[in-house]
Amino acid sequence: MNKPTAQEVQVLMARYVERVDAGDIEAIVQMYADDATVEDPFGQPPIRGREQIAAFYRQGLGASKVNARLTGPVRASHNGCGAMPFRVEMIWNGQPCALDVIDVMSFDEQGRIRTMQAYWSEVNLSVQAPA
Amino acid sequence: MNKPTAQEVQVLMARYVERVDAGDIEAIVQMYADDATVEDPFGQPPIRGREQIAAFYRQGLGASKVNARLTGPVRASHNGCGAMPFRVEMIWNGQPCALDVIDVMSFDEQGRIRTMQAYWSEVNLSVQAPA
Repeated sequence: MNKPTAQEVQVLMARYVERVDAGDIEAIVQMYADDATVEDPFGQPPIRGREQIAAFYRQGLGASKVNARLTGPVRASHNGCGAMPFRVEMIWNGQPCALDVIDVMSFDEQGRIRTMQAYWSEVNLSVQAPA
Repeated sequence: MNKPTAQEVQVLMARYVERVDAGDIEAIVQMYADDATVEDPFGQPPIRGREQIAAFYRQGLGASKVNARLTGPVRASHNGCGAMPFRVEMIWNGQPCALDVIDVMSFDEQGRIRTMQAYWSEVNLSVQAPA
């Protein structure tokens, strides 16, 4: 099989955000290759493999509801990679907060995530005004 | 010297977009380290060094006016890297077009761009409606 096309990368990455929004950890982890690596935030040592990745998402998404949505189109390359801007909303210390993130992903020939790097730091965290 | 902080990465990357918008090729090239690499679009073989990089921007920006603006915040890491979503508008075959791009950059200890990877393909190109 070949790596996913640019269109397929767009579908896969949008699906990832939907699954984060749904808090469906099992469905998220299924998107990863067995030996995938995650650097979230980028700059931290990578975590590797589905077991560690599952623990990472349980820690991040297991405690309370997180909303996630794309804030622009998935930019997809012709070598099975892509980058996407999205926003995560959560309650943090009782306060509604938003975090602007860009995820960069590479995919394998089975259309599974091989590497994920999440670009963000506290400069991208904002307290949200009440709706 | 240390690598730029997350705040400094945000300033540097926003400045880069301003210089692309201004079409100021010399000022853009000055932002790069001598042995920097550019992969634009990501997936193509890297071009290396200021001379090749200058030629690349002359080809892209020299022919006609290009507008560029950030479409969201620069996501900056704590290891001197960042990613940003932006939109480039140009006239292409007589038609107003827009290209949605995400640039990922790493900086050196002098605050110069060491690597630039631009995520986009034709799936991110759209014909713009008249204003």
